[in-house]
Amino acid sequence: MVRAVKLSAGSDLRETSRSQVVAVIRAAGQIARIDIAQATGVSPATVTAITAELIRAGLVEEVSPDSSQAAGRGRPRVALRVRGPAHILAGIKVSSATISTILIDFDGTTLSEHESPLPEARMSPEALTRQIVDTLREAAAETGREIGDLSGLGVGISGVVDVPEGLVHWSPSLDRRNVALRDQLEVALPMPVFLDNDANSVAKAEQLFGEGRGVRDFLVVTIEHGVGMGIVIDGQVYRGTRGCGAEFGHIKVHLDGALCRCGQRGCLEAYVADYALLREAAVTHPGLRGSTPEERLDALFGAARSGERTALSILERASRMFAMGLANLVNIFDPGLIIVSGERMSHDFLYSDEVIAMMKTQVLQVDAPPPEVRIHKWGDMMWAKGAAAYAMEGVTELAVRRLNDA
Amino acid sequence: MVRAVKLSAGSDLRETSRSQVVAVIRAAGQIARIDIAQATGVSPATVTAITAELIRAGLVEEVSPDSSQAAGRGRPRVALRVRGPAHILAGIKVSSATISTILIDFDGTTLSEHESPLPEARMSPEALTRQIVDTLREAAAETGREIGDLSGLGVGISGVVDVPEGLVHWSPSLDRRNVALRDQLEVALPMPVFLDNDANSVAKAEQLFGEGRGVRDFLVVTIEHGVGMGIVIDGQVYRGTRGCGAEFGHIKVHLDGALCRCGQRGCLEAYVADYALLREAAVTHPGLRGSTPEERLDALFGAARSGERTALSILERASRMFAMGLANLVNIFDPGLIIVSGERMSHDFLYSDEVIAMMKTQVLQVDAPPPEVRIHKWGDMMWAKGAAAYAMEGVTELAVRRLNDA
Amino acid sequence: MVRAVKLSAGSDLRETSRSQVVAVIRAAGQIARIDIAQATGVSPATVTAITAELIRAGLVEEVSPDSSQAAGRGRPRVALRVRGPAHILAGIKVSSATISTILIDFDGTTLSEHESPLPEARMSPEALTRQIVDTLREAAAETGREIGDLSGLGVGISGVVDVPEGLVHWSPSLDRRNVALRDQLEVALPMPVFLDNDANSVAKAEQLFGEGRGVRDFLVVTIEHGVGMGIVIDGQVYRGTRGCGAEFGHIKVHLDGALCRCGQRGCLEAYVADYALLREAAVTHPGLRGSTPEERLDALFGAARSGERTALSILERASRMFAMGLANLVNIFDPGLIIVSGERMSHDFLYSDEVIAMMKTQVLQVDAPPPEVRIHKWGDMMWAKGAAAYAMEGVTELAVRRLNDA
Amino acid sequence: MVRAVKLSAGSDLRETSRSQVVAVIRAAGQIARIDIAQATGVSPATVTAITAELIRAGLVEEVSPDSSQAAGRGRPRVALRVRGPAHILAGIKVSSATISTILIDFDGTTLSEHESPLPEARMSPEALTRQIVDTLREAAAETGREIGDLSGLGVGISGVVDVPEGLVHWSPSLDRRNVALRDQLEVALPMPVFLDNDANSVAKAEQLFGEGRGVRDFLVVTIEHGVGMGIVIDGQVYRGTRGCGAEFGHIKVHLDGALCRCGQRGCLEAYVADYALLREAAVTHPGLRGSTPEERLDALFGAARSGERTALSILERASRMFAMGLANLVNIFDPGLIIVSGERMSHDFLYSDEVIAMMKTQVLQVDAPPPEVRIHKWGDMMWAKGAAAYAMEGVTELAVRRLNDA
Repeated sequence: MVRAVKLSAGSDLRETSRSQVVAVIRAAGQIARIDIAQATGVSPATVTAITAELIRAGLVEEVSPDSSQAAGRGRPRVALRVRGPAHILAGIKVSSATISTILIDFDGTTLSEHESPLPEARMSPEALTRQIVDTLREAAAETGREIGDLSGLGVGISGVVDVPEGLVHWSPSLDRRNVALRDQLEVALPMPVFLDNDANSVAKAEQLFGEGRGVRDFLVVTIEHGVGMGIVIDGQVYRGTRGCGAEFGHIKVHLDGALCRCGQRGCLEAYVADYALLREAAVTHPGLRGSTPEERLDALFGAARSGERTALSILERASRMFAMGLANLVNIFDPGLIIVSGERMSHDFLYSDEVIAMMKTQVLQVDAPPPEVRIHKWGDMMWAKGAAAYAMEGVTELAVRRLNDA
Repeated sequence: MVRAVKLSAGSDLRETSRSQVVAVIRAAGQIARIDIAQATGVSPATVTAITAELIRAGLVEEVSPDSSQAAGRGRPRVALRVRGPAHILAGIKVSSATISTILIDFDGTTLSEHESPLPEARMSPEALTRQIVDTLREAAAETGREIGDLSGLGVGISGVVDVPEGLVHWSPSLDRRNVALRDQLEVALPMPVFLDNDANSVAKAEQLFGEGRGVRDFLVVTIEHGVGMGIVIDGQVYRGTRGCGAEFGHIKVHLDGALCRCGQRGCLEAYVADYALLREAAVTHPGLRGSTPEERLDALFGAARSGERTALSILERASRMFAMGLANLVNIFDPGLIIVSGERMSHDFLYSDEVIAMMKTQVLQVDAPPPEVRIHKWGDMMWAKGAAAYAMEGVTELAVRRLNDA
Repeated sequence: MVRAVKLSAGSDLRETSRSQVVAVIRAAGQIARIDIAQATGVSPATVTAITAELIRAGLVEEVSPDSSQAAGRGRPRVALRVRGPAHILAGIKVSSATISTILIDFDGTTLSEHESPLPEARMSPEALTRQIVDTLREAAAETGREIGDLSGLGVGISGVVDVPEGLVHWSPSLDRRNVALRDQLEVALPMPVFLDNDANSVAKAEQLFGEGRGVRDFLVVTIEHGVGMGIVIDGQVYRGTRGCGAEFGHIKVHLDGALCRCGQRGCLEAYVADYALLREAAVTHPGLRGSTPEERLDALFGAARSGERTALSILERASRMFAMGLANLVNIFDPGLIIVSGERMSHDFLYSDEVIAMMKTQVLQVDAPPPEVRIHKWGDMMWAKGAAAYAMEGVTELAVRRLNDA
Repeated sequence: MVRAVKLSAGSDLRETSRSQVVAVIRAAGQIARIDIAQATGVSPATVTAITAELIRAGLVEEVSPDSSQAAGRGRPRVALRVRGPAHILAGIKVSSATISTILIDFDGTTLSEHESPLPEARMSPEALTRQIVDTLREAAAETGREIGDLSGLGVGISGVVDVPEGLVHWSPSLDRRNVALRDQLEVALPMPVFLDNDANSVAKAEQLFGEGRGVRDFLVVTIEHGVGMGIVIDGQVYRGTRGCGAEFGHIKVHLDGALCRCGQRGCLEAYVADYALLREAAVTHPGLRGSTPEERLDALFGAARSGERTALSILERASRMFAMGLANLVNIFDPGLIIVSGERMSHDFLYSDEVIAMMKTQVLQVDAPPPEVRIHKWGDMMWAKGAAAYAMEGVTELAVRRLNDA
């Protein structure tokens, strides 16, 4: 299909071809040159030229042919793979109480994981920058490295992020709006920084390492303190014009409905997020045990599982609303796959088969199966890995551009 | 940004470059080679080679330099433009009561417009095919041409269309589900047929000829008998996996809400579409004048304009729901632009400044202006022109591929 | 319990006692003087004096003691009963297409039933008066009587009736507001006329002849073209200050909800009345068979019974709303009994055990059984009988007052 | 109008007449015998006999004629009035944090007011009984009296009270359900106890001392921690069959709506009560100042008054819901008057002219003015006074019955 719109400034076709070649090699793990040509549509001759450049630059390496596999099929084909040691990338996920850090190498292998507590949920940009630098130093030290050994850092943060500008319009982790956080981090660190909304980090992690591998159009939905979404269209994370898109938690599902943390009414989040469930439970279950929201949620889910009626009412309405929200996504995106992603036991209710079934009754009915919904439970470290993956892509692009300049 | 996903089979980089060059020339009207290189990122040498091919194939032509403009700036640069007579394309919009047909040439100039009545709103695929063939013959004859002179036909139809398969899952114009309408038309006509959902046709028309020119990400929203949407992301019409996406009219805005034509509850359409307004009016305004829905709607809007309270109540609630629906689109897509597109006087209420203002209070608030909303009033002929534009793109791609094969 | 408020002018204690004595006799069928004293709290001596007056006036008569029953228990007690031939009363129910008339005697025995068609649903007060006079004449003639033989006429009419003033604020049967219909009828007829809202007529019928006998506080709910209610508190039909109370159909169950015939939003009626069901069906079942609303409703209920999904959706939401409405009545009135009264097959859904069960989950939960709900199917003739009963009470009061004056 | 239902056992007409005479004297303040006869419909001779009895019993006394007023109009008429010292009555309102006590004499004059703190909001029946006895002893002592000097105690308590049985089905003040609280108090105190729901106490206070004097049918609505209602129909407080009526706070205004303290969904209370407002504010105004709910409410109202947008949103939605609830009451009761009664500054929003105006648009529209709504601000002491008034009525009835027995 034709693209009628100018590519991003500074790119050219050669650079695009190189990036595609690296991406295809990374996605495949190991792949022969002829299969790269097939997969990218780049001519075999150009593939040969590009891979020579990449090998020279140390980004890619040849793999000795697997003799057993090749037996009897003529000359074994030499495969290529990404060269792991080429770069070390860090990924950080900033949560309300912790910073999770991961180090990966250039082929995505995890080198180390690290978690440090955060003194407070909302910080000044300067304090957050210090926290990130400190935690990165510790994480590097754990593997016998220094910050200077890292080629890039990806950071995932809740809130509204203008990715091209590296600007955080708003984040629950920051005590101020419109923070040029990427630039601040790049001043403090000797490496390029790739800043994104944390739900986009999850989408990136799913795309490169998880359920989204090889799926052209998919959505990632997360429910934790809030409701988030990452959109992958045509193989790319879609971020909207101002970085405010994908606000699944803030689509309105009721005129003049429940009050949301954002100050508006009827947002999906105001019915299904942690705070929404606890807000209801606070009225009917004043004695709910737990000093933290997590503990009280545990108690609420426990009560529901034991059949307590009002606890069930709380989770059932949330489930119905969530099903309706998912149906809205299907009706808008008709994606190939929806990945519901998160860490919590809330899955038992909100991510249940009943919810998926309810959702399916609310999507446009055609004689083709509705999109698959996969539940993928994981923790903060996978958010961090997504941030690292984002850095890996960015560093790849920079490396490829450098080749070009050479 | 890197693409991690395989391009569509059969395309290659050269072909992509050619298509980009044509698209850039078409978008620009007239453009010099050096500016094409700048705009596409293709090297000047390659641009020169490609444009030579395109000129030889008769798709593009040189324009004599405008001496007045060029005076005193050295050698006047030769510009290129698309060669209008290269191809004639037809576009058809199938409505409930009429078929609108437009003929355009290869640079998008309208050659003729034609409208024929449809005997009934729902037809068999065979009857609809006959109607389309007949109307196309008439439209061609009016300009002294024959069907054989046309290079391609674009058809926009309401309903759910699987574009790659050319399959109509469901349409109010067809008395049957899952119709391979594209193939049926290609059997009956000596030209390639490009079939799409009609809202996508409008999106295509806006992108090539209307408010969407040069905008990377935008949405087109239409309210008529139903509520439709076209999504343009990264310069491409987004159609979803099964062709069921962009169902703006069927996003749920109320749990257990008003009953929609689709049999489900709470769809936006069930609050704002023509039938939803008339359904309410039927109860409170049994004497509403008019033998057709259009006339009764006219009477309802008239009553509201004259201040009649219940008529106002009908339109005001619809307006609030529509504002909420638009806000949902912004919260999901954060588009650069929303084009509200249609023909009707309902604009006075549903597309009013008040609605846009309401919408703005319901989007995520950041320190960047919300997307612009442009109201674009037009008629069925523009839907047809969008279908023709879609054919123009398809024919271009085929022509470019043929160059390749040569 | 003490009454702190002045009784209605013109009544006195003696008159009240007489009325109570007649009411107790009528309710009992047959009753001995000593049991009347017991039941009313009036002293035996006063009961003896009052019953002597009533017998002299021909309103009451002695019944020969039933010797078998009395055997061996000393002197058989003489019982009293209301004297049937004392008065003949007519009751009329004005519907949209018919006038139903009943004649009863003074002990409530039905003498004849009569139904005449109405030329149009909305009439001038003069036309309606003529229709009533004509139909009354026919009904009397059928039993060999004349209008002059009737002692009183009760009329039940849809709409808002100010009973003390005999004023119809508004009625679907009248083409004008604020009609002094009682006075107009009394000018045309040689008898006192007792005009009431038709739901109150049903309440009166239930109280005197139906499920409400001997129940101090009960509600009657009707669903037909609209949703009506009669309230009996402390043995009296409660009519509100302006005759606008008991508007069960117009309690709001949704902010900015569905549009009601009354022009307001969210009324219960807009979810459960005939027109509300058909309004939804019109969109999803355009082919619903039936030239009249009744036939189309039949078809809708039939479709639902056969399991058709959207038809079920229509009736299920109506059922949930109706259950919620009933629960509201219980939460406000805590009545001893709710009688759901009507003629239609809609009972199968709206008046089902499931609805009653749903209702019970929505009332305040105490350790005492929720009010019983009885379904009482009947037709227009019982509405007419209620109107006649209302006339019977009124004529009794007039007769008792005349005793007083004597 | 005729009463078809047996009066309460043990009453008789003479007793009823005596009670009416006392009630009329009390309502009038001072009134001549002939006017009593006029007001009650009891014959002058009987009035003379009854008042002689009442004077002998010390319940009523003659008032010397006011000579100035009577001048020149023949013999001045002797008026009667209730004899204040005849009885001392106590009224108690049990709140969550305090017990308010009032002592009044037999003509309703306040003798003293007393407030004691409660150690906890929920108590065992035994603990509450002890608290009541202690506080009553203190209150009596403050006026130099002992508990034995009191003729009766009225108690108003939140929750569901079966008045005839003296049973508290449920109360937020008690840690157990189905408590025979009246009997328990009568065992502990040497006087009859009259137990009622606190909203009924307010209704009684309004009827005897407040805005409800001389109004036959009126409603009292209260909004504090919850939403309560007292219903006065035909001059009597209406309590329902099981004491569960008048639950204005628990009428459902939304299917599957907000969760109420009662565990059900969509109750009016869940939108307008204190806890509902604070529940919303907790999410958007986590920093709302105040250690008590009252202080946080103050802060919320302050924020709204200063124009803070989300605070306004909280109060505006509550106001709309409250207006809808009031409209429902009008549509059901068509009362002569609604008294909105309470203590709090919330009046500024929930009880505003805008709310009343909104309510009026949602009631059935007839050509007669909608019921007047009066705002009556007062504190816990008036609730206590209502309880005392209820005791006053009960003691009067007992005194009158004793006359009878004599």
